[in-house]
Amino acid sequence: MTASTQGSTPRRILVTGANGLIGGLLTDAWRESDRYRAVGLARQPGPDVEIVTDLTDLDAAVNAMEGIDAVVHLAATSAVGSTWEQVLPSNLIATYNVFEAARRAGVGQVVFASSNHAIGTYETENAPALYELDDDRIWDHTAENRPDSLYGVSKVYGEAMARYYVDHHGLRAFCLRIGGVRAPDDPSHPALLWKPEFDNDPGKLATRKRTRAVWLSERDCVQLIERCLESDRDWVLCYGISDNPRRFWDIEHAKDVLGYAPQDAAPKDIVPDRSMPS
Amino acid sequence: MTASTQGSTPRRILVTGANGLIGGLLTDAWRESDRYRAVGLARQPGPDVEIVTDLTDLDAAVNAMEGIDAVVHLAATSAVGSTWEQVLPSNLIATYNVFEAARRAGVGQVVFASSNHAIGTYETENAPALYELDDDRIWDHTAENRPDSLYGVSKVYGEAMARYYVDHHGLRAFCLRIGGVRAPDDPSHPALLWKPEFDNDPGKLATRKRTRAVWLSERDCVQLIERCLESDRDWVLCYGISDNPRRFWDIEHAKDVLGYAPQDAAPKDIVPDRSMPS
Repeated sequence: MTASTQGSTPRRILVTGANGLIGGLLTDAWRESDRYRAVGLARQPGPDVEIVTDLTDLDAAVNAMEGIDAVVHLAATSAVGSTWEQVLPSNLIATYNVFEAARRAGVGQVVFASSNHAIGTYETENAPALYELDDDRIWDHTAENRPDSLYGVSKVYGEAMARYYVDHHGLRAFCLRIGGVRAPDDPSHPALLWKPEFDNDPGKLATRKRTRAVWLSERDCVQLIERCLESDRDWVLCYGISDNPRRFWDIEHAKDVLGYAPQDAAPKDIVPDRSMPS
Repeated sequence: MTASTQGSTPRRILVTGANGLIGGLLTDAWRESDRYRAVGLARQPGPDVEIVTDLTDLDAAVNAMEGIDAVVHLAATSAVGSTWEQVLPSNLIATYNVFEAARRAGVGQVVFASSNHAIGTYETENAPALYELDDDRIWDHTAENRPDSLYGVSKVYGEAMARYYVDHHGLRAFCLRIGGVRAPDDPSHPALLWKPEFDNDPGKLATRKRTRAVWLSERDCVQLIERCLESDRDWVLCYGISDNPRRFWDIEHAKDVLGYAPQDAAPKDIVPDRSMPS
């Protein structure tokens, strides 16, 4: 053990949305870590929640940042079909409050859970063809914003808010357009694989192919967020998916600027070999 | 007079923010028009206001759209330094309400007054050098969003909202990043020209040079909005400035996609010839 790590204090990372799937992953991953300690925040109590508060309250957000070294802002209404009444408080007001509270509290770094739905119209326009293994279209972080939902609009807004705080208030921000993190996290799980009844339901087979394309494994998700926390960059916007055999969102930029090195890949073959007895 | 125009009814254009400078320009320009009739909307009564209402009320916004053929959405808190408390109701909530009300009321076309402040950081990073006549940097509608303010963030959001309604609800939307419309509208007005005391105040001279670069004359402003109303396109994002001798925002795209043909240009020489007696 070197002098620099001996006795070092883990960085205190405020994890908003701590009752969510990714919030739980971080808490679990960092339970024994000497690098990070998750300080979970949510509106409702939970096993990983240390601070119960509503981020629509700016003062409460500022208070929650006391003694915090970085924020992973996961709290949001996360359903693509979220209504305006859900998006306004949870994604518009709360996200401003997180960035402004970070500024006021002197917290220098925010990882923001954005979403591919910021550009989801490229997918809705080209599905299901773009889910196929031999389709080679990929959209990267420079694609023009084309949100597919009010939820997607809120993520474009969150990215713009992040950029404003980077450019004009010295914050360092990392916007991750996270793909599909699944529980259970198993590439052979039925959620990823074909079932016999899909022969009569091409929509369901397309959904499986989509899942194959956007899957982000739990450990790749944790790695990507940790790469952000370790980065010395001021601004990154990238996608978060595993090394899947077909991807329509770019991960080369995440590899280049963050050193992201995905360890997992969705299975190429999601339809069992029909010649084999089942 | 042809049969197609004889006795035709002017299109009813809802002009939000009718007490503002541009709202007044449209009302004046269309007073005798057989193409357009401005239906002014504002929170406060005024000479050009027909509907007094607050756009933070969605139902009121829907009611205001009754019998309307297109919307020119100018209402906003327009100061770059606007606070969150101003931006949230006037630019975030009201803008959603305008697009959603248009959808509910079946109004098919919205012209949205966006702003160059959606990418204002390119200017703040490069001023005052980019105001000079021999500087050739130009940012167009494909530039990555870099808002310089909460106001700028709200305009990125409004553009994303517009795009969502275009892509998913069949709206046709025109986002204009409008430059500086001035009253009085006179290129030799002191607001555009050097004054002797600027010899000791380079900041003020830079401000004059900026005004020269971003000026949008009143008639060019009206023309640009009318070009949007006449366009058969679904989606346009462009800048609105006159044919100024130095511009750092692009107007070629507006010319290409809208047929915008600016009639005015700011003066090249804003510093009087020192060799002449003053």
